[in-house]
Amino acid sequence: MDIVIIGAVAAGAKAAAKVKRLLPDANVKIYTNDTHVSYSSCGLPYFIEGNFSDYKMLLVRSPEEFRAGGISVNLEANVEKILPETKNILVSVDNKSELVKYDKLIIATGASPFKPEIAGINDYDGIFTLRKIEDGINIKERMQYCKNIVIIGGGYIGIELLEAFVRNGIYTTLIHNHEHIMSVYDPEISDIFRKRLETSNETNFAIYTNEIVSEFSGKYSELKSVKTLSGKEFPADMAIICAGVVPNTSLAKDAGIELGIHNTIRVNKLMRTSVEDIYACGDCAEKTHIVTGQPVWIPLGSTANKEGRCAAMNAVGVHCEFEGVLGSAVTRCLNTTAAMTGLTEKEAIKAGFTPITATVKKYDKVPYMPEASEMTLKVVADKITGLLLGAQAVGPVGADKRVNTITSALIGHLTVDEFSNNDLTYSPPYSTTIDPLLNAMQILCQKTAKHC
Amino acid sequence: MDIVIIGAVAAGAKAAAKVKRLLPDANVKIYTNDTHVSYSSCGLPYFIEGNFSDYKMLLVRSPEEFRAGGISVNLEANVEKILPETKNILVSVDNKSELVKYDKLIIATGASPFKPEIAGINDYDGIFTLRKIEDGINIKERMQYCKNIVIIGGGYIGIELLEAFVRNGIYTTLIHNHEHIMSVYDPEISDIFRKRLETSNETNFAIYTNEIVSEFSGKYSELKSVKTLSGKEFPADMAIICAGVVPNTSLAKDAGIELGIHNTIRVNKLMRTSVEDIYACGDCAEKTHIVTGQPVWIPLGSTANKEGRCAAMNAVGVHCEFEGVLGSAVTRCLNTTAAMTGLTEKEAIKAGFTPITATVKKYDKVPYMPEASEMTLKVVADKITGLLLGAQAVGPVGADKRVNTITSALIGHLTVDEFSNNDLTYSPPYSTTIDPLLNAMQILCQKTAKHC
Repeated sequence: MDIVIIGAVAAGAKAAAKVKRLLPDANVKIYTNDTHVSYSSCGLPYFIEGNFSDYKMLLVRSPEEFRAGGISVNLEANVEKILPETKNILVSVDNKSELVKYDKLIIATGASPFKPEIAGINDYDGIFTLRKIEDGINIKERMQYCKNIVIIGGGYIGIELLEAFVRNGIYTTLIHNHEHIMSVYDPEISDIFRKRLETSNETNFAIYTNEIVSEFSGKYSELKSVKTLSGKEFPADMAIICAGVVPNTSLAKDAGIELGIHNTIRVNKLMRTSVEDIYACGDCAEKTHIVTGQPVWIPLGSTANKEGRCAAMNAVGVHCEFEGVLGSAVTRCLNTTAAMTGLTEKEAIKAGFTPITATVKKYDKVPYMPEASEMTLKVVADKITGLLLGAQAVGPVGADKRVNTITSALIGHLTVDEFSNNDLTYSPPYSTTIDPLLNAMQILCQKTAKHC
Repeated sequence: MDIVIIGAVAAGAKAAAKVKRLLPDANVKIYTNDTHVSYSSCGLPYFIEGNFSDYKMLLVRSPEEFRAGGISVNLEANVEKILPETKNILVSVDNKSELVKYDKLIIATGASPFKPEIAGINDYDGIFTLRKIEDGINIKERMQYCKNIVIIGGGYIGIELLEAFVRNGIYTTLIHNHEHIMSVYDPEISDIFRKRLETSNETNFAIYTNEIVSEFSGKYSELKSVKTLSGKEFPADMAIICAGVVPNTSLAKDAGIELGIHNTIRVNKLMRTSVEDIYACGDCAEKTHIVTGQPVWIPLGSTANKEGRCAAMNAVGVHCEFEGVLGSAVTRCLNTTAAMTGLTEKEAIKAGFTPITATVKKYDKVPYMPEASEMTLKVVADKITGLLLGAQAVGPVGADKRVNTITSALIGHLTVDEFSNNDLTYSPPYSTTIDPLLNAMQILCQKTAKHC
C-alpha cells in the first residue's frame, strides 16, 4: 500500500509515524518543500529568547530517523499537482518532475505567514516572518546585532517574540492594527493582559494599537525604520511580521478538492476530504468547533498532532473520529499567562447564543501565601440553557489550570449548575478555598436565576 | 427566625454569613468551643513554615466582624445538649448553662485529631496535634528551640509539617504505621512521591514506614524521644501526632440524629439530618462520592465551605442541592506536588468496578524548556463502560492542573473515548504538544479496545 504524505511538520510527521506503526508493510513517502520535518514550530520564540540554545532540540524526529523506520523522506520537494483520477502526485525534486502513485494521500501542507502589502516589504534585509526552523535561526542570529526591533501584529507569535526580544535587552515596538492586542480574547481581557505587560518590571518596549504599518524604510539594503499611516516612524534594525497565517491549499483546490471556511480544506470527522482516498489534517484543514458544531479555522500544533494521528488511522482502515476543537490556547509573556477555551462573549453572540458572563478578579492562591497573585477569569455561559460556553484567564501560571478545567466541562456539555459544586483540588499553595472558577459559577448561577 | 449554628471554622462560619445575607432579619447565633471563628486551618502548616508571619492572616472574618453584621458569636461556649423536641440547645458559657431556642439548627462541629493510645502521651510537654489556631501558634513557638522533631503519621498534614520543619533547618523524622506514606494514593504513586522527597535537595529528614510508635519518653516534663515497637528510638524535642481525625458527632448522636459512615452525621443532598430542622455540614457530616454514589467521609475545607453555604440556603428556604465530593486534594512538599481526584485503583476495585489504569511518566512541558520536569500521572477508568474514575499525579506544580482537568470530566461522567481528543491548552512553557493526560487516555483507549 502506497501512502503519500505532503508536508511533515506536525500533522504530516505524526501521520507518517502512525501509518508505519499500524501497517509496517506500507510504503510511506513524505514530500515536503521544507528543509526539516517533524519540528516544534511553537518552540521557535523560546529558542530565540534563549531558553535553550540548540535549535535541534526543536526537532522531534529527524529525516534519518524516519528513514531508519522505513519511511521515505523527500525534503525540498515541490508537489506541483495532485491527480486524483490516476491517484498520482506530480513532484519536482532537484528540478526533475516525477509522478508518484498513491493508494491513500494525506495532505498536511500547513499554513504560511500572511504578508500584507506594505511598501518596501521586499526591499530590505531584516524583514522576517516566523514559521520555519530557518526563520528562527535567522531571526536569532540577526537579533544579536539589533538595538531596535519592530513586531507587526499582537497575536500569539507577536506577543511571544516581544518577550524574547525584551528579555534579550532589545528595545521592542509592537504595532497592532486594531484597538486590542490578542484580539481573539474579549476586549476587556485583552486590555488586562496588555496592562499587566505594561506594568511589569520590563520597560524596554512599547505597544501601539490602532496603527497601520504603511512602509518599511531603509538605507541601501538595510532596514532602518517602520512607518505607520498616522505618520509615526519607529527605528528598526529588524521587523517581524506576525500578521496571522493563511492555509496552504492551492494544491488541493487545483485538484478539485472542496474547500471550506477561510479557504481551508474541508474534511469530515474521519479527516477525509471530498475526494476519495485523500485526507487532510493540520493547519491546512478545516475544523469543527465542539461548542457550536460549526466549521472554524483555528490552526494550532496540538490539534495538528491529533488530526495527523486520526487521518493516519482512517487511511489504513482503523476507524477514528476527530470530534473537533475548542480553540484552547495559552501563551506566556513577561510572567503573565493568558489562556482561553471555547467561545468568548463576542463569539457566543455571533454563534447565536444569549451569553451571560462572570468576570472575577481574584487571587489564584489564598492571599496569605507569599506567591499569591491576582488573576482575572471570565467565564461565558448561555442564559437559556445554562450551558458553559467558554473561559478566558489572565494572570500568573495557574490561569491555564482554570481554563483546562473548563475544557472537560465543554466536552461534557456541563451547565453552570452542574459545574458549580465541582470538587477542585484545594490547598493554600495552589488555590483559594473557593476557587475563582467556583466564584464565577456562583455569579453565573445567579444570572441564570438558578440557585446552584 | 432563630438560626443557631454550632461550630464556626469553615462550614459554620460560611453558613452564618450566608444565612444573614439571605435573611437579614434572622437572629443568627454562633456557639463554638473554639477561641476563634472563621479561619483557614489548612494554612497552619504554612504559618509554621514561615510563609507568612502573622497568624491573623489565617482569620477570614473576626468575631467582631460577625457581630458588626448582626451575628451573635459565643466563643468558648460548650454546647451540652441538643433538644430536638423543644427545639433548644443547652449551652454553658462561663459555667452558666442556658437554653437557646432555635427554629433551624446547623451543626458544624467539625472533627478532632485522633490521638492513639501511646504510653506517655499525656506525660510530657512537646506533644501536639495540629488543628486549631492555638496549636499552630504553640508548635511554631516551640519549634524555635527544637533540634529534632518527630512527626507521627504520613498523611497530608504530616507531609506538610515535614516541609515546614525541614525548611526551618530542623532535623525531622516522619514515622508512618503502614508500608506507604500518603496511603490515600495508590501504593506505587505514594512511593514515587516518597522517592521525590528523599532525592530532593533537602537532606535533614528521614521517613520510616511500617513503624508503630509505642512510647513517648522524656525527662521530667520534657519530651526527649519517641520509641517504636521495633525497638527504634528517635530523639525528639517535639512530636506532632498527625494520625487522622475523627468527626465530632457525640452531641448529634445523643440527640438521636442518625449517624452514617465513620460516625459522621448522615445528611441528604439538602444537608438535612434525620431530625427535622437540623442541618449538618463540614467535617462532621457524611458526604456522597459522586463517582460511586456511595457515602464517604473525606473531610476537607473546600467541601466544608460549599456544604455550609448549601445548609444555610436550605435552612432559610432557598433550595440548594449538594451533589457530593470527588475526594479531590492537593499538597506540596519540598517542591513536589501530589494531587488526586475521584477513585484510586484500589478504591475502584473496592467499589466494584473493573479498573483499567494508565500510568505515564512524562515531562510536564516540552523537554527543551529549561523548567520542564518529570511528572507521573495515573488515570483510572472502568474497563466495561469506559468511564473515567479518577486520577493521581505527582510532580512539579502543574500536576494539580491535570487532576483538576479530570474533576470536570468526572462531574460530566466522561468516558476515556470522549476525553481522548480533549482540546487542552498547549504552549511550550505549559505543556507538551500531546499532554500527559492525553497520553494516558490513549493507553486507556487501547485497554478498552476502543480506537479513540
